[in-house]
Amino acid sequence: MEYPALYLKRGEDARLRAGHLWVYSNEVDVARSPLTAFEPGEACAIVDHRGKPVGIGYVNPNSLIAARLVSRGVEHALDRSLIVHRLNVALALRERLYAEPYYRLVFGESDGLPGLVLDRFGDVVVGQIATAGMERLKDEITAAVVKVLKPRQLWWKNDASIRTMEHLPEYADLGHGEYGGETIAREGGLEFAIDPVSGQKTGWFYDQRENRDLLARFVDGKRVLDMFSYLGAWGLRAAAAGASEVVCVDASAAAVESIARNAERNGLADRVTAVRADAFDHLKALREAREQYDVVILDPPAFIKRKKDFTEGRLAYRRLNELGMQVLARDGLLVTCSCSHHMPRAALLEAVQQGVRHLDRQAQMLIALQQAPDHPVHPAIAETDYLKGYVLRVLPA
Amino acid sequence: MEYPALYLKRGEDARLRAGHLWVYSNEVDVARSPLTAFEPGEACAIVDHRGKPVGIGYVNPNSLIAARLVSRGVEHALDRSLIVHRLNVALALRERLYAEPYYRLVFGESDGLPGLVLDRFGDVVVGQIATAGMERLKDEITAAVVKVLKPRQLWWKNDASIRTMEHLPEYADLGHGEYGGETIAREGGLEFAIDPVSGQKTGWFYDQRENRDLLARFVDGKRVLDMFSYLGAWGLRAAAAGASEVVCVDASAAAVESIARNAERNGLADRVTAVRADAFDHLKALREAREQYDVVILDPPAFIKRKKDFTEGRLAYRRLNELGMQVLARDGLLVTCSCSHHMPRAALLEAVQQGVRHLDRQAQMLIALQQAPDHPVHPAIAETDYLKGYVLRVLPA
Repeated sequence: MEYPALYLKRGEDARLRAGHLWVYSNEVDVARSPLTAFEPGEACAIVDHRGKPVGIGYVNPNSLIAARLVSRGVEHALDRSLIVHRLNVALALRERLYAEPYYRLVFGESDGLPGLVLDRFGDVVVGQIATAGMERLKDEITAAVVKVLKPRQLWWKNDASIRTMEHLPEYADLGHGEYGGETIAREGGLEFAIDPVSGQKTGWFYDQRENRDLLARFVDGKRVLDMFSYLGAWGLRAAAAGASEVVCVDASAAAVESIARNAERNGLADRVTAVRADAFDHLKALREAREQYDVVILDPPAFIKRKKDFTEGRLAYRRLNELGMQVLARDGLLVTCSCSHHMPRAALLEAVQQGVRHLDRQAQMLIALQQAPDHPVHPAIAETDYLKGYVLRVLPA
Repeated sequence: MEYPALYLKRGEDARLRAGHLWVYSNEVDVARSPLTAFEPGEACAIVDHRGKPVGIGYVNPNSLIAARLVSRGVEHALDRSLIVHRLNVALALRERLYAEPYYRLVFGESDGLPGLVLDRFGDVVVGQIATAGMERLKDEITAAVVKVLKPRQLWWKNDASIRTMEHLPEYADLGHGEYGGETIAREGGLEFAIDPVSGQKTGWFYDQRENRDLLARFVDGKRVLDMFSYLGAWGLRAAAAGASEVVCVDASAAAVESIARNAERNGLADRVTAVRADAFDHLKALREAREQYDVVILDPPAFIKRKKDFTEGRLAYRRLNELGMQVLARDGLLVTCSCSHHMPRAALLEAVQQGVRHLDRQAQMLIALQQAPDHPVHPAIAETDYLKGYVLRVLPA
């Protein structure tokens, strides 16, 4: 074997053989292979207690997830050529799914590249690296992306808080190409100017695209309220699908300015209003004013970032959804989402139902929402399944 | 109160107030209101232990579900006028969802009419009654359906095995209109001749419609295998969406004849073959012959009818999915479903993943499938959420 061996304790290969890709630090036989002997991000062969290799991966002695499996078998090196292969496999799926080159190209573990996310915006690619192993391979990844996609720019948006767990610095910079020019996300025939450096995450949330596609069925001629609207994706898609009036609400001044510009750009400014406000405050004010909307969209940031925040976060979802229903017209539609991995799908529906009954109403759950297929779920890694939501019809009891 | 009271024991109103509609027999205060005093299906007022009414419903002393709540509050009678109101509320949703009158109009508890299902096929309505309470109201329901929809025919397909639990006879007959004429299900621009008397359930499975809509994205130019195809809905939709070759497999001779007729009717006969065979046997034969398909659809009947059949049924899903993957071409798509309420969503994915690893492959779960929105889920009644499935991309490891 080319790479130093990371030995697992007896039986700790079972989860990997069942499909998972992570090795927790307590599963490593540190007598045979001390974690401290590895540099952060160093490539390794992952080997079971009998000396049989599971595959190759990379180590981080500083992380609770001590190693991640990248390839089963040991015939291939962890190099540019393997990354090019993974990019081509990932690309084949996205080209089957989408007519235009606007999508999440790589979704980490689910695409066999643990710790790496790549979003494609035409000829601009925005990457996010979450692990020391991928950080070490950054030049190889850059070269592979250039080879496969020939992008005008590749941005690294390496500022996620998860990086601190890997002892990685936070930064955003241009990894390939020259500064300048606009970055555009295209979705449902609309164009949104995005900011790969100062925006949220990669600048855009492709994970909700198919959920926003579903809106067209419900918004024609309707008044729509889009809470936590960021760049106005839900609201503008609703307006394009025939909504008579759309109000987008976001707490960020920059986001509100972007919504107005994006509405203008797509010829929807006459039907879209952007409001800067805290979501909870704004919903309370609308309730006091007895304002009502036919469709209310609640797509908040993750209220539960860590497992221990569950109780508090769940209550926030409960309160938010009840407020949302209080500004909903009779026989209105509630579109409610959570991107917290730690908020189970069933718990979100339960929280909504508690609000429904507290307001003495009844609800029909019409559609369960999920992340878009360019964010595939790894069937053995529950953490890759994070986005959930519901379209509910809310009626008097 | 107009109706005799069914008293609940202390605390047993909580689940009803949280939204549920069922009263189990052990929750009834039989000292105050003996169940034996009620006739099967008799209307009642459901009353908590302090004498405060929860609402009106109906009783069945023979069933484990001793009563079902139909209306909260006691101001309305359990009569034709209430049923007409419920039908209109249900109709408003379906008319928002679908351009043509082909859908499930009433989905029992989820539409506030516990124990009643109505499927609409243009001017033909097919109903299923599952409870003594609804059986007693059959004439009122018939009158309400005639008033709201003016159908040419209303069929009663009251032959579900669940009726034995309510001590109801099994039968199928014409409830309104005159015999004769064809019944057609329209879906995705195609027409399928169905049989309200001799077909499965109401004759058609509207619950998979939106899932079949998703096929269009994946089948253009592909070879498609449709297992348990019944009338060929999946297969013909795939052919209409551009599949180069479709094979539909069903164990029933009548189904296979119907598929051929439906293919002819829709001008798809040149690309659709119907085969009569047992699914497991046929998949094994295809495996032996090294036949491969780009897309394999597994939409079996419920393998788990009762909770105690879980272990055996789960194994059947596991075996079926592994066989399906063995006839899947490289980078193929597996569409796998379960309509067993007792097969949890996660258990189906786990069963598939076990097959994936057993065959030394990897999978990406692209889309989680669910029942169509004309089968709304009641957020407080888990039993109303029964259909699950996945679209998976299967790759070499």
